[in-house]
Parts: sequence; C-alpha cells; structure tokens
Amino acid sequence: MERPTQLTTEQVMFFDTDCGGVVHNIAYLRFIESNRTYLVETMGMGLRQMAADHIFPVLVRTEIDYKRPAGLGDKLQVEGWLESVERARFLVAFRITRPVDCQLIIECRQVLAVVQMPVGRPMRMPADWVEKYGSLAPQTR
Amino acid sequence: MERPTQLTTEQVMFFDTDCGGVVHNIAYLRFIESNRTYLVETMGMGLRQMAADHIFPVLVRTEIDYKRPAGLGDKLQVEGWLESVERARFLVAFRITRPVDCQLIIECRQVLAVVQMPVGRPMRMPADWVEKYGSLAPQTR
Amino acid sequence: MERPTQLTTEQVMFFDTDCGGVVHNIAYLRFIESNRTYLVETMGMGLRQMAADHIFPVLVRTEIDYKRPAGLGDKLQVEGWLESVERARFLVAFRITRPVDCQLIIECRQVLAVVQMPVGRPMRMPADWVEKYGSLAPQTR
Amino acid sequence: MERPTQLTTEQVMFFDTDCGGVVHNIAYLRFIESNRTYLVETMGMGLRQMAADHIFPVLVRTEIDYKRPAGLGDKLQVEGWLESVERARFLVAFRITRPVDCQLIIECRQVLAVVQMPVGRPMRMPADWVEKYGSLAPQTR
Repeated sequence: MERPTQLTTEQVMFFDTDCGGVVHNIAYLRFIESNRTYLVETMGMGLRQMAADHIFPVLVRTEIDYKRPAGLGDKLQVEGWLESVERARFLVAFRITRPVDCQLIIECRQVLAVVQMPVGRPMRMPADWVEKYGSLAPQTR
Repeated sequence: MERPTQLTTEQVMFFDTDCGGVVHNIAYLRFIESNRTYLVETMGMGLRQMAADHIFPVLVRTEIDYKRPAGLGDKLQVEGWLESVERARFLVAFRITRPVDCQLIIECRQVLAVVQMPVGRPMRMPADWVEKYGSLAPQTR
Repeated sequence: MERPTQLTTEQVMFFDTDCGGVVHNIAYLRFIESNRTYLVETMGMGLRQMAADHIFPVLVRTEIDYKRPAGLGDKLQVEGWLESVERARFLVAFRITRPVDCQLIIECRQVLAVVQMPVGRPMRMPADWVEKYGSLAPQTR
Repeated sequence: MERPTQLTTEQVMFFDTDCGGVVHNIAYLRFIESNRTYLVETMGMGLRQMAADHIFPVLVRTEIDYKRPAGLGDKLQVEGWLESVERARFLVAFRITRPVDCQLIIECRQVLAVVQMPVGRPMRMPADWVEKYGSLAPQTR
C-alpha cells in the first residue's frame, strides 16, 4: 500500500510578501491549500465532484511552524502527504522547502473531517480510504 | 431624494502591504468590497438576505486609478456612493483618502448587475431602487 | 499587573466565504492578524514604529482549531490576549465567537519572536515587556 | 519586432470562490498579477532583480470586465500581452478564458509606470523597451 503524496511548486509573487520584505504567513496557508486540494484529488475526491455533491473535506485543526523566511521571486517546493485515516477524520502534513539552497521554510500538520455542506453534517471517511489507507502510520513525529 | 453614501475606515495591516513597502493593489479592492457591501445594505440589500435568497449584486466592470501609495499603519477613509440606477445595472463610485495629510489614494468606479445565483440569471433592478434613485445623475465625470 | 487584551469585531464579507457556503479558513487568519496587530500596539509596538525601525514581531508557530463554521453576514468577535513573555519569544492566544448565538468559532494560539528585518536577526524581548509581563502565567490549557 | 506575450494557467481553488458559488472578483486580480509578473520578466525585469534594486512596475490604472462567471475546479487560461510602451508608462492587457467550453471570463487592461521604491520616484521606461517595443500599436480596441 502506497502513501498518497503531492508535490507542487510556487513562485513567490509581490502579493505573497509584506513590507517586512518576506512572505506573509497568510500566503503559506494558500500554498498549502492548493497542495492539499491536489493531494485529496489523488485520493479520489476532486474539486468538481465536491462542487456537485457538496461533500467537502473541512479543516478541524492546523499547526504551522515557520522555520525560515522566504522572499520575493523564491521558487518554493510544497510536499504534502497523507499521514493517516481514522474513523471520523484524516491527517495530512506538509513541508515547504526552497530547493536552491535546501532550506526548510515551513512545516505544517492539518486534521480534517469530511462534511456535507451547508448543513455541516460530518460523514464517515470514504470506505475505500479506510481500506487503502487505514493501516498507514503517521510519518511525522 | 438623497444619494446613498457610505463611509468606512481601514487601517493598513502587514497583509495589505507588499515588499515594495506600500499597499498592494489587491488590498484596495478588498477595502472597496467592504464599503460597497455596507453601501448596498443601506439601499436595502443586506448580506444575510442575499445569503438566504441567493440574489446578489454582481460586478460587471471595475475601473481603479491608483493616485498615490499608502503604507503600513496608515488610516484610510473609504467613501462610496451610488452614481446611478439604470434599467439592468447600477453604478457606484469610491474614493480612498488618507485624512492625516489629505492625500487622494484611490479613485474607483464599478458597474453591477443584480443576479440570481448560482444559475446567473440577471434580474431587473429592485422596483424601489428605480423609484427612489432612478433620476440620480452620475456625480463623477 | 494587568494582562494585555484586545477586542475586535469583524463582519463576514463575500470575500471571506467560499463556495462551501461558510467562512474560508484563510479569512480567520486575517481576522487574527488584525486583532494581534492592535494587541501588540497596546503593548507599545505600533505599526508605524515597526515600519520606521524594521523591528517586527514574527510568527514562529500558529495553532488553530476550527470549532464551528461561520457564514456570510455573521458578526464575529475576536478576543486576543497575551499568554506569556519568555526570554526569546512571546505567546498570544485568540478566541473568535459569534455573540448572537454564543457559539465558539475559532481557538488559536501563536508563538512569536521579535526580529530585525530584512536580515532576520532575532532580538531580545523589549525590557519593559519582561518587567511588566514576565510573571504572567499562560491562561489557556 | 515581436509583441511580448505570456500564457499562464490557473485551477480555481476553494479560496478563489465565494458563497455565491463562483470565483470572487479579487481572485481574478491575483491571476492577472501572476501573469503580468511573468510577462514583465520576459521583457527583462525579473522579480529577484526588482527585490535587489527596488525598481518596480507600479499600477496606475486597472480596468476589468467580468464577462462570465467561473466556478470551483475550472481550469482557466490567462493570456497577457504588452499593448504599448510610451515615454513614461506602459500598457498591458489580459484575457482569461475557460478552454473546455471556449468561454471568455475576463478582459482586463492595465497602465503601469516604473517607479523606484519606497520613495516612489517615477523612472523613464528602460531604454531597450523603447527601442524594441516603442512602435507597437495597441492590439485591443
């Protein structure tokens, strides 16, 4: 059984930085959102399907550690992976690095539920997720 | 008959600036959105009502002139007003100033339709808007 | 000795929501940023001073728990407070609630350092912070 | 002499949409910013160079026409091109389309100056721009 992973790249734009001269913390969350969208899509839950049936992954918790600043024009690599699938939630983790000098920029862990919107009813994890990923042990910590 | 107007204030936050040291153009659009939301509410179309009946004002066109830069910590004043109501659209305009030194920062004009979402069906202007505001002449230009 | 606290209010705008019908997680981080900016200002570190001397509070870690969704037009209350000041970092915490139905929406804790930008040199905590707030015990958990 | 052009693609993410079920107007401006950054880079003004010498293209005016809504998961194509270079400013234009059904989503025109920040001093257009692009006639309208 293989752990779902996702690699995306981002180039730091003006709107990602602030007047401190570095990337603003809100921008990192957007980079992570994009990566997680593709990650969850590889697990079989795509955006267009979500838009149609209104069943979405919903964040329960985010933890981000800001390790080093990134700056304008930096090319960043975002690695995302599935940590584990539990009965009523799943865990994902992310690492943002700057390949040109091998610096670690961000570490992030998120906990998500699967919810039917807009009523907000929590759903069980998809049956095939439990089957395929249920025995994955968290890779981080 | 009185022209609907709206005054809001914004303090420039880190996330509003970029590494050029000034407010990023995307932030001004957010300031204008907030002002327009309150402006349209004074005309009788509130957010919670929109969320309930899915009839929204929808942008058709935006024009923004960036006159002078604003910076971190600046207190800005946003003035918004109804320019005119036509048969199938209405026009609003905005001016962002920095009261402390009386500088003009932004001028903006927007054209909106009223649309039922998500189908995107254009609606007539509300009957009371035509009655109350139909004879307003544009104030700008 | 008094614990610094800050109360801000936000009205949920269209740009704060996503097509799931609820507030997007990135918006909450912006609400928290605004509150923390005012909180840190009451502790003596204002935006305009930061812009002048390039000494900024910089995030080291964020933890957010998303307890309940908020929606378009909701009036939210953001409470922020100083948890504690240590030798090389300080801790703050936030609670976002919806007063109309007394619902808890968000809990958040952040760890910050004080850094001179753009070189990124960590500074000691301001001397008066250690004196005034050094004996504060964390209020949360 | 060849007109500088730039093609970028965007997939509509949750954070690009609002509770009306469609892409929020602020998101389009971000798509255009990214495209223009690459466009200006092909003209010889890259982000890292800007960050080093603090000479930036700065927006003077934006006009956007919102033609049709886009939705969650849509794959959008952004075409940007140089319209013309004048003595103290240059003009660019953009078209956002949805290739899957050939729909036109956005048309945009922007006017920019080249400015040394943070003092905000306007600079002449780069000499090689005038030479290479000075005789380009606007393509739009």
